[in-house]
Amino acid sequence: MKLWEKGYNLNKIIEKFTVGNDYLLDQRLVRYDVALNTTHAEMLLNLGYLNRGEFEKINACLKNILELDKKGNFNLELKDEDVHTKIENYLTKELGSTGKKIHFAKSRNDQVLTDIRMYTKDELKEIIELVSELKKSLKRLSKQNIVMPGYTHIQKAMPSSIKLWSESFMEALDNDLNLIKAAYTLNDQCPLGTGAGYGLPVKIDRAFLAKKLGFSKLQKNPIYTQNSRGKIELFTLNSINQVMLDINKISNDLLLFSMQEFGFFEIPKEFCTGSSIMPQKKNPDVLELLRAKTNLFASYQFSMQSIIENLPSGYNRDLQLTKNILMEGIDLAKECLSAINLVVRDLKVNKGNCEKAMTKELYATEEAYKLVKKGIPFRDAYKEIAKKIK
Amino acid sequence: MKLWEKGYNLNKIIEKFTVGNDYLLDQRLVRYDVALNTTHAEMLLNLGYLNRGEFEKINACLKNILELDKKGNFNLELKDEDVHTKIENYLTKELGSTGKKIHFAKSRNDQVLTDIRMYTKDELKEIIELVSELKKSLKRLSKQNIVMPGYTHIQKAMPSSIKLWSESFMEALDNDLNLIKAAYTLNDQCPLGTGAGYGLPVKIDRAFLAKKLGFSKLQKNPIYTQNSRGKIELFTLNSINQVMLDINKISNDLLLFSMQEFGFFEIPKEFCTGSSIMPQKKNPDVLELLRAKTNLFASYQFSMQSIIENLPSGYNRDLQLTKNILMEGIDLAKECLSAINLVVRDLKVNKGNCEKAMTKELYATEEAYKLVKKGIPFRDAYKEIAKKIK
Amino acid sequence: MKLWEKGYNLNKIIEKFTVGNDYLLDQRLVRYDVALNTTHAEMLLNLGYLNRGEFEKINACLKNILELDKKGNFNLELKDEDVHTKIENYLTKELGSTGKKIHFAKSRNDQVLTDIRMYTKDELKEIIELVSELKKSLKRLSKQNIVMPGYTHIQKAMPSSIKLWSESFMEALDNDLNLIKAAYTLNDQCPLGTGAGYGLPVKIDRAFLAKKLGFSKLQKNPIYTQNSRGKIELFTLNSINQVMLDINKISNDLLLFSMQEFGFFEIPKEFCTGSSIMPQKKNPDVLELLRAKTNLFASYQFSMQSIIENLPSGYNRDLQLTKNILMEGIDLAKECLSAINLVVRDLKVNKGNCEKAMTKELYATEEAYKLVKKGIPFRDAYKEIAKKIK
Amino acid sequence: MKLWEKGYNLNKIIEKFTVGNDYLLDQRLVRYDVALNTTHAEMLLNLGYLNRGEFEKINACLKNILELDKKGNFNLELKDEDVHTKIENYLTKELGSTGKKIHFAKSRNDQVLTDIRMYTKDELKEIIELVSELKKSLKRLSKQNIVMPGYTHIQKAMPSSIKLWSESFMEALDNDLNLIKAAYTLNDQCPLGTGAGYGLPVKIDRAFLAKKLGFSKLQKNPIYTQNSRGKIELFTLNSINQVMLDINKISNDLLLFSMQEFGFFEIPKEFCTGSSIMPQKKNPDVLELLRAKTNLFASYQFSMQSIIENLPSGYNRDLQLTKNILMEGIDLAKECLSAINLVVRDLKVNKGNCEKAMTKELYATEEAYKLVKKGIPFRDAYKEIAKKIK
Repeated sequence: MKLWEKGYNLNKIIEKFTVGNDYLLDQRLVRYDVALNTTHAEMLLNLGYLNRGEFEKINACLKNILELDKKGNFNLELKDEDVHTKIENYLTKELGSTGKKIHFAKSRNDQVLTDIRMYTKDELKEIIELVSELKKSLKRLSKQNIVMPGYTHIQKAMPSSIKLWSESFMEALDNDLNLIKAAYTLNDQCPLGTGAGYGLPVKIDRAFLAKKLGFSKLQKNPIYTQNSRGKIELFTLNSINQVMLDINKISNDLLLFSMQEFGFFEIPKEFCTGSSIMPQKKNPDVLELLRAKTNLFASYQFSMQSIIENLPSGYNRDLQLTKNILMEGIDLAKECLSAINLVVRDLKVNKGNCEKAMTKELYATEEAYKLVKKGIPFRDAYKEIAKKIK
Repeated sequence: MKLWEKGYNLNKIIEKFTVGNDYLLDQRLVRYDVALNTTHAEMLLNLGYLNRGEFEKINACLKNILELDKKGNFNLELKDEDVHTKIENYLTKELGSTGKKIHFAKSRNDQVLTDIRMYTKDELKEIIELVSELKKSLKRLSKQNIVMPGYTHIQKAMPSSIKLWSESFMEALDNDLNLIKAAYTLNDQCPLGTGAGYGLPVKIDRAFLAKKLGFSKLQKNPIYTQNSRGKIELFTLNSINQVMLDINKISNDLLLFSMQEFGFFEIPKEFCTGSSIMPQKKNPDVLELLRAKTNLFASYQFSMQSIIENLPSGYNRDLQLTKNILMEGIDLAKECLSAINLVVRDLKVNKGNCEKAMTKELYATEEAYKLVKKGIPFRDAYKEIAKKIK
Repeated sequence: MKLWEKGYNLNKIIEKFTVGNDYLLDQRLVRYDVALNTTHAEMLLNLGYLNRGEFEKINACLKNILELDKKGNFNLELKDEDVHTKIENYLTKELGSTGKKIHFAKSRNDQVLTDIRMYTKDELKEIIELVSELKKSLKRLSKQNIVMPGYTHIQKAMPSSIKLWSESFMEALDNDLNLIKAAYTLNDQCPLGTGAGYGLPVKIDRAFLAKKLGFSKLQKNPIYTQNSRGKIELFTLNSINQVMLDINKISNDLLLFSMQEFGFFEIPKEFCTGSSIMPQKKNPDVLELLRAKTNLFASYQFSMQSIIENLPSGYNRDLQLTKNILMEGIDLAKECLSAINLVVRDLKVNKGNCEKAMTKELYATEEAYKLVKKGIPFRDAYKEIAKKIK
Repeated sequence: MKLWEKGYNLNKIIEKFTVGNDYLLDQRLVRYDVALNTTHAEMLLNLGYLNRGEFEKINACLKNILELDKKGNFNLELKDEDVHTKIENYLTKELGSTGKKIHFAKSRNDQVLTDIRMYTKDELKEIIELVSELKKSLKRLSKQNIVMPGYTHIQKAMPSSIKLWSESFMEALDNDLNLIKAAYTLNDQCPLGTGAGYGLPVKIDRAFLAKKLGFSKLQKNPIYTQNSRGKIELFTLNSINQVMLDINKISNDLLLFSMQEFGFFEIPKEFCTGSSIMPQKKNPDVLELLRAKTNLFASYQFSMQSIIENLPSGYNRDLQLTKNILMEGIDLAKECLSAINLVVRDLKVNKGNCEKAMTKELYATEEAYKLVKKGIPFRDAYKEIAKKIK
């Protein structure tokens, strides 16, 4: 039964269209919504809207839901609409009148936002962890004392090295982490208690809710709370995108420099696939897919932006779609981080090929600088060397 | 077993990363790949690479696959990699040596392209059908003889009507259909027989393949054939997007004009949901989600574009991702078309509210034109009326 | 003076914000707006709203504007707002009352659309011409009888050739031209006579206007006419984008294969720049910028889409921005087409390097096919060759 | 003369294609490049590569450039290529051999990055200032003690107020400012001294350069330094985008609620334009353009992302395009902030219309809560009220 049931049935096609895959996505939110309901019930107890006995029953019932969920026995279906409905209905079925009290002083609008913020915070912590793993793999790689050519305009430019290359991504990831932390702080604001977006016609204890649920601060204004939906998610994706760009570049470099014509890098054959027609092929699919999937990540930012633009204030159903975009985006990012980490960890550098590629034009600038040290103005030195090379 | 199996195992995490959800998407392609293999086998028979008996066995076995698939008993799993592998393995398991002959003179690269083109052609036909349905619903609506205000800059501008409004979308959809047909023609070119992207070192009969599989012409150059992957899909989405923009606008108009403050339109309550906290609410979720989902459609074009940009010629594994983007995009479009059709079909127009809204400023231009007919130059007439209104 | 002047002045900052660079863009539309006004005046003559003398004066004055414009003496300024205002004001200043009659039975809304359609048709013709030039350069290139390796997954795959490579883009461009022609047909519908978007409270002769201005058909419904703004422009960009994708791929191929490590291609040094610090550098900037600018083109489609989404029917000022996006997009496309044509025309192929790269793994499929011809099933033949190579 | 001149001339068309409008954009960087050269010269003095007299001459000459630029007499032209070339050429023309020494130990690659970072930091400070102005205007507006309906799903939901509405954007902007500050910190890292992207074959004093130029820290790794180009710009745009989303929402709300059918808000007529055909129109163009331009802003993020994806490490000429995207994006943001600030500052709230709109369904939740306080479980109370309303 829908929470808003009013004696008519939703057209079946329209119901499917409006619910979409929300009930599937909400499966991941069960644990957060249980925590939320538990804390909310405790607040209702403190404020006198539930008595101790009622609270205990609700608390036990919610614990039970958590257990069921862990065992895969609390599965949402299309008709459940969403996790909030499923849980309220379960409480009401189990506890009768007591269950019907749980939705006092909250709305699904502030509930879902709170669930998503808790979810996002957990995911960002995982992403931070995965980035640290990648940094460690790069660190190990950087220990290899091997020179290689540095390119600009994909033409040989100046001497570089495995160390310089590896460290470039380590510094990039350090900067990225700061931005991901800024996204974490943005998510670390509690929306609960703002109702449908215009506050509640009753006094409650928002500070208690926020603290118990592990938030550092309150999101105060109820209109802003709803308006921040999708907007905070967008920034979250923007910050993760910075990591995706690094992975994209690592993949591009490895693809290029592991071509037979360069042979600087070799990825293990356990990471390569073959062709159905050509017997000789060993293809670096994982790198190609890392390139493609990091590009794909950009489109999650784009989708999020399209959904939230040109909407008036307050909750609009359009915002429902932000949940899927966020979750798919985060999953993709984690998947890419895991894969690139394996690649970097198991990467082989072919010292011989790297050294063979250190041809003399890479030292042209150094040659010019030697002339400068002899007192020749730089631009003249540059021209002298250029003339020699031509 | 992978078709390219060479005695080493793919790293499990990397395998999952590279296969992705391809095996699930390929389930939809079974019928097309069966048709393709059947036709290909017939060509091999004609060319003498299969004898009659071998062909009959392959043919029977492929028919069997089709039957199994219809009953849901030919299900791809992650380890199957893709539909082409699954089918070749099945043929080999059932027919031994004869099955091992099926992949001669083709590659998965041209196979998957051919499957997708056949799939796309079928889907475009369905979309054309759904657009025609929508046009019929608009046609019925246009019969209602009701005036309403026309707006520019969302300010009242000049008199309009339900007829004018409905017909505007009918004409729009007519133009869209031409573009979808251009996309159909583009897809109606047979890639089969171009191998991995550089042709085949054996003479085959491509015209036979194309004709038997229902294509109007051949895609000739094998490099172009592979390079067109994603590119033709992108244009296909571009053309469908034109319809999505119409649905977006219909939804925007209906959302605005069904607000209580206008009351021109009413969508049936069977299409509306309620609120978990506010007892009075009846929300036009279907329209909000149509607005959002038509916006979301744009991101499929964006994803497709990102995947195919900056790649060199020839098949690159990045292109695998185009399959999911195309299929999700087409599904979304069909879903939106079905929903908007229901909305337009069951829409109620409130004649009283429309007429009440026909206030006199809507006739200001007409007033000015009356003065023109009396001989006053237009710009002077305009100013005279403007002065009166101020 | 603004055409809608009502005795108050627009806030100067707001005026600048709203006019933007419109007056500069409109400079390109002078010739189209002159043609439009001339035809419109002739219709007013036919309908009796102008007498012969008035028409002649207007006609002469418009011809004069055209002359002034050709000499750069009819320059729009911020205060002119747009080309339509500038021309009406000019007519009124020169002809007094007669000038004030010109705006009867039209609106700037249908005027600007008509101007843009005429502009777009001319530009599409130029683009078609430039594509034909490029095809010719590719054709010349294809005559060189040089083999080169074909790559998949950027690994050597099968034998290819300059001919195959060149022809792949020729076929791609042929397909593109069909889509550009579909865009041309879409633009070839006359919006004039639909007024502000709700028709006109007076009978006019739209067929006359369309025919005289060179349109093949009328855009009938006035609401659709306004709603098609941006939407038709978007499709126009979508179709040109297909060409941009080809240029992007040509550039990627040339960048890769002109790297010293391949040396298949050489672009003339007159197309290359150097470095301020490294004396030895000769950089293929033109190719890098072709890659980047064809990517940039995608964002014009994106901007167009963002502007027109989530707007209600009828003219909204947002649509003004579509003009700049369209014009910048078209300019970019023409610029890229000119540059790539020069590159392809003057490209040098290094036959020696190409041949040297034809290593034996490229023939592995051919080897397997030889075994097939001896009666070995393909998959067994594949494995035998694979084993040899490993 | 190009700095890399090697005795051949660039093809004129290609030169125009590659330089683009860079020379115009670089005009804004003159002041930063002068500061950079001055500091660099001082470092060369400290390290003994310039003597005191040479340094003084260079210093004076750079000061002169700054003066010329202020007066509009140091204008870059196409042939100057960029600001770095123009300045070195000027120094060389004025000072002969001494001028030729200035480019020792730097590259245009690290120079342009440093200029852009200094430019961005200044611009972000201006944006922070403009956001603060907007917050003040909202603060003043929030003082008006006026109730208004709160909407969800654009249907009346619960009571709201001008105060609640205004404060929602103030809190949003506070969060945005934190993100803009994160972008500032990211930009506040000095790239100078990393050369073309692979360091310099000479010892220099990077800490001195950074400190003198006002940077808080060094960007250490030279490859990362080049790879961060576009990436840091993208994040900068991402953070500003958060403000653009707020402006977009303010505009949407004002557009809707200033429609005649609501009449809650009125924007001054000095901000409105009229129609060329309809005498009665007063159009809220500024709000429509704010809606459109904030949407347009999204495309700058998109362009930036497209340019930097799929590039290998090191400077690639593609990155040149990031400069224009960044500058246009920042200009657009500042323009929108100025306009919305005027609108909010001069906005009139129509108290009568707001109060009239406070119909009783807005209090349905409050009614249900009264029943809860009497002991009725919430869900039963909800149903009781819902039944009454139906």
